[in-house]
Formats: sequence, structure tokens, C-alpha cells
Amino acid sequence: MERETRYEAQNVLIGSFTLESGETLHEVELAYEHVGPEDAPVILVCHALTGNQYTIGDSEPGWWKGLIGKDGYIDTSEFQVITFNVLGGCNGSTGPLSINPVTRERYKADFPFVSVRDMVHSQKKALEVLGIDHLHAVIGGSLGGMQVLEWGALYPDGMEHLIPLAVTPSLNTYGIAYNAISRFAITNDPDWKDGYYDPHHQPTSGLATARMIGMISYRTDEMFQKKFGRAATETSEENHKEAKYEVESYLHYQGNKLVSRFDANSYLYLLRAMDTHDISKGRGNLTSIIKNIKASILAIGFKGDLIYPPEDLEKLFAQAHSSPFYLINTKFGHDGFLVEFDKWGPLIKEQVTLTKNIEGVK
Amino acid sequence: MERETRYEAQNVLIGSFTLESGETLHEVELAYEHVGPEDAPVILVCHALTGNQYTIGDSEPGWWKGLIGKDGYIDTSEFQVITFNVLGGCNGSTGPLSINPVTRERYKADFPFVSVRDMVHSQKKALEVLGIDHLHAVIGGSLGGMQVLEWGALYPDGMEHLIPLAVTPSLNTYGIAYNAISRFAITNDPDWKDGYYDPHHQPTSGLATARMIGMISYRTDEMFQKKFGRAATETSEENHKEAKYEVESYLHYQGNKLVSRFDANSYLYLLRAMDTHDISKGRGNLTSIIKNIKASILAIGFKGDLIYPPEDLEKLFAQAHSSPFYLINTKFGHDGFLVEFDKWGPLIKEQVTLTKNIEGVK
Repeated sequence: MERETRYEAQNVLIGSFTLESGETLHEVELAYEHVGPEDAPVILVCHALTGNQYTIGDSEPGWWKGLIGKDGYIDTSEFQVITFNVLGGCNGSTGPLSINPVTRERYKADFPFVSVRDMVHSQKKALEVLGIDHLHAVIGGSLGGMQVLEWGALYPDGMEHLIPLAVTPSLNTYGIAYNAISRFAITNDPDWKDGYYDPHHQPTSGLATARMIGMISYRTDEMFQKKFGRAATETSEENHKEAKYEVESYLHYQGNKLVSRFDANSYLYLLRAMDTHDISKGRGNLTSIIKNIKASILAIGFKGDLIYPPEDLEKLFAQAHSSPFYLINTKFGHDGFLVEFDKWGPLIKEQVTLTKNIEGVK
Repeated sequence: MERETRYEAQNVLIGSFTLESGETLHEVELAYEHVGPEDAPVILVCHALTGNQYTIGDSEPGWWKGLIGKDGYIDTSEFQVITFNVLGGCNGSTGPLSINPVTRERYKADFPFVSVRDMVHSQKKALEVLGIDHLHAVIGGSLGGMQVLEWGALYPDGMEHLIPLAVTPSLNTYGIAYNAISRFAITNDPDWKDGYYDPHHQPTSGLATARMIGMISYRTDEMFQKKFGRAATETSEENHKEAKYEVESYLHYQGNKLVSRFDANSYLYLLRAMDTHDISKGRGNLTSIIKNIKASILAIGFKGDLIYPPEDLEKLFAQAHSSPFYLINTKFGHDGFLVEFDKWGPLIKEQVTLTKNIEGVK
């Protein structure tokens, strides 16, 4: 008999929340998506930079639909899956677009810097409010993977499985460099107005530029070559603004698409969280941090990932843990964690079903 | 007895010049640097995107000083070396900053698109005006390498040696993508004003963004990692504009530096020439083009070059010619052709001195 499942997308209020920096935010809320049978083990998903809480989605397919779902690799008739929009985000959680209850104005650039640790702490608090005190697994890639590793470091007893994807203990130089140019493009767009722009009049060209910069770092040159080559568009315009090549037209499209769904300030706050994150910060050496994690770990890296090199993830666990590391052979590079579920979904499925039935015994 | 050498930096007028597109420019001039003994064989250097005619330099060291010079790998007591600023450039040659003799106004965005073929044809014409009808060698990297290959295709009898560095027969998809984002950043800077900006009020942030995008594509992630790691700056500012990491500060510096010496429109015209260039365009297959070249060819690629992959250069000559191809092992990637002369300068020296004394006999 099939268990009753549910699909919820709403907000949870966690109240006042003090950040790592010492600043306190009030009336903090996190938006979340929650699916699966009420008595099933809970899997927490952490999203990446431009992701959101909609992994499965409702009217529109979510970004991990296919990996997660009824009969997915993470089967929502067997597991509850919950995903929060990150603190500092722009999809319903408290962030720069939110109204500051103290001033009754939007925070905009007065929003304090938030860290990956703050994101994790706020998720823990939200789970408590929702009555969830233990997680079966925590999974995520990229900025989401940073949250996964941080979950392990902050709450070493908090989950059975930790599944970091396409991530490293901290961002490498190349990643910081890409983020730096994205930040430069946004903050030098006159429409940014030092962060105090009208939300209906975003710094669109700066944010689009940032997105385009992201896009070329998320995928491999091989992928771009295969997909577009030197194919020309059909434009007959001869000016500097026109996209003359398919790849150029694709980048413009991706840039504009993000502008329509994302807040430029939020983008900046999340870049900063990504740059400054380091799981070893204030904790001593990486080996002991990883050894301290009680969960069983499944680490997955993606070949050709420029900003989170898989070698660095492998090294992290090779030194410290007897956890398996898998390198997925892909042309997608970093974006590998968002596609080709058939390549690595089975690993996830095996991992999360492994101990599902012996929980409580452990 | 040492032969008398000379150092000249001036302009040569080539008059009316019809472009590949059919448009005609009038009173065209090219700025050039010319060194070496008057009766010595002539080596032509072609410069890259943000390069100029100053390979050796006078008051300030030029960009190939050390490779070229008295007792350099290209010895200016044995060879004449001449370098033109490209057509469309902004260092003295006719380009968007120049006064259109017809309108007596600056061309700005009315300047016609120029191609790599136009650059080469204009150099040939300038050499004729200067009384130079045969070249000992043509050498250059990147956009300069595109000119070198094109020299071979347009004037297969025009030189003894062809030395293309860090180049491919046409730009790959990744290169087009990087250029597309650079172009987007410049043309969406409101100060660009559709190309009709006052030259004293450039689209500085767009051009700086473009330069920063260039910088990360010219060097390898390994290089960035080694040079900067995650080293933080000493800033105590906590805002989105401040450079928090050394690599960010370095990129800002490079961006600003280019703005002070380069014209944004010129940058756009050269990007377009780079994107659209293809030595096979209108000529049939690559193999026959290369086979048609009479010069002896020395092709050099640089490991980790993202935008001109060395494999593609190797393939070009492997198919068609018995010319040697060398892959230089470097951490610099594409920028390899601007540094570490000790690694590949000896190859150049050997090549150009090989037949120096038997010229005329050949």
C-alpha cells in the first residue's frame, strides 16, 4: 500500500537569528519545499548559487526533478525531501529584498554579510521549528556542497549520510577570480546604485554579465565546442551589439533569463559567502574535521570542474576518511551535478537506501 | 666590426585602402617600430589584441624585449625587426580614434569592420612604401599568430620563415564565448554610448571588465592558484566593491591599467576581427592552404592554452606539412608566448639563423 505523500511549498519563521559576524536579524524566515510521507526518513537538499528550494517543483519542474521524485534515485515515496531557499537568497527566504522589520524598509545593501555557516545554522533552526531533529541525509552540489560539508562539521551527529557533490573545502583561486569579475560587473553597473536600486529597476547588464561569466566556468571548453562550434546566427546586423555566433546568442539568453528571476544584491551576498567559506576556518586541520564527522560520506566530483576541482575533494577524503570518492566522467564539468542523473544517481540511491531500515539501531 | 643599427618609431602613409568588405578607407597610415641594420634581413612581428608596435621599446621596454634585441634570440645586430600597430588599433595606426579625412571627425563607431586579412594586406602595402619587398620571417602570437598564418596564405612566396605562436586556424568556441562576454560588458556600459563616446570619457568599467575576462582566459588555473591561492588583501572594508582577495585586487589593477592605454572601440573591432577570422574562409581545405605555403614553418603551441588549444595547431601542420611543431610546457597557458623566452627563444633563434646566410641562393 502506497503511503500518503505531500507537496508543500511555504515559509517557516525562525525568529531572531544571530549571524557568525555577531549581527542579529529579526523575524527571519526560510522558504522551503517539502515532499514525501510524513513518517519517512528526512533528506535535506542544499541548493547552489542560483538554485532555489524547488528541487522537484510543482507547476514547473524543479532543478533536481528526475534525481528526486516518485521512483527517482531519491524516491519520494520512501523519503521526505526538504529544501530551503538559503538565507540571503531571493526566493522567499530572508535576504536583501526582504523588509527589515526594524526599519520597515527593504534591507538592500544594508543586509549583513551571511556565511555558509549561517546558512546551515538557520536551516537547523528551521528544521527544529518544523519538528525535525534528525536527518537521514544531507546532499547538495557547489555552494550546496559547501553547506553539506559544513553540516557535517557543525552537526557531526546530525545525519546518517553526507553527500557532497562538486565541491571543495574552500573555493580555489580561479573560482574567486570568476566571482571577482562577476562582482565587478554588477557593482560597476550604474543601475546598481551602491546596492540601493529599486527592485523593479535592477542592474540588469551587470547581472547578465555575471551570469554569462558563470556559465563559461560551469561547463568545459569541450562541451562548448561540441554544442556550438563556430556556428553563426542568422543576424545580418553588422554592429557590436548583435550576437554573431550561436554561443554568443546562447550566453545572452542565459544572462537575460537569470535577470528575470534573480536579485543582483542576493547574487553578490551569495558570491561573498562562497568566496569566504572555508570549512577549516577556526577549526584546525581538515583531517580532524572530517574524522569528526559521524555520518557515512559519499563524495562525488565531476571531471573538468574548473572552480571545484574534483582532485581537491578526493584528497580531502583520502586523507581523513575511508569514504568512497567517485569521479564522474562528463563533458559538463562543474554542471555535472545538475545533469546526467543516470551516471551518478544510482550511487546516491544505493547510499541512502543502505541504512534506511536500520535507523534507530545505529 | 659592428654594423650600424637604428631605432625608429614613426608612421607610414599607405593612402587609400580597400577592405575585404569592399569599403575604402582614405589616407590610411600605420604606426611602426623599426630597428636593426639597414642591409640586414627583415623580420616582421605581428602583435596580439592589446599589444602594439613597441616590441623592443625605447624609453619603456617593449612587450618582446628580451626575445628581440641586441644579443636577443632575434638579434637586432643581425636582423631588422619591424612591427606595425594593426589597422583598427589605437596606437597610432588608422582606427576608430582616427580622424576620418572625409568628415574631419573621428570615426568612432562609423569605422568599418576590419579583418585579419585587411591587417595583413595593409602591412604588405606599408612594407612596399618602405621599400621592403621580401621578408626573412613573419612571427607573432595569438591575434598576431592569426596574422602570421594569413601572411602565409596571402603571400606564400613573401617570406623565408613563418613562425606562428599560440594560435589556431580560427578561434574556438570558448574563445568566441570569452570575447562575447567582453563585448557585452563594453557595449552595455552606458558610457559606451553606442560607440560615440568622447575619447576622454571612455566606457571604463566595461573595458576593465573585458580585460579581466581576458586575463583569466590567458593564464591557467594552476598559475592563478600558485600565484595567489586564497591570500586576502589588507582591506578592512566590508562592502561589495572592495577587493577582499589578492587575485581580485590583481584583476582590478589589470583592468584599470588597460583602460588607461587602450580604446574601447578599438578593443571591439579587434575582438570582431579575431572572432571572424578563419584562414580557410573562401579557400577550401586547410591542408591545401598550408601545403601552398613556400616558407619553412616553425609552429609553437603552449600547454594549457584555453582559447588557442595547442592540439589544434599541431593538427594543422601534422596533416599538411612536414614542419616542426613544438609544445612548450608552461604554467602560463596562452600567455606563454609573452614570457619564459629561455624555453622557446632558442627554437626561434635556430630557425631564423638557419638560412640567413644563404638567402638569394634559395
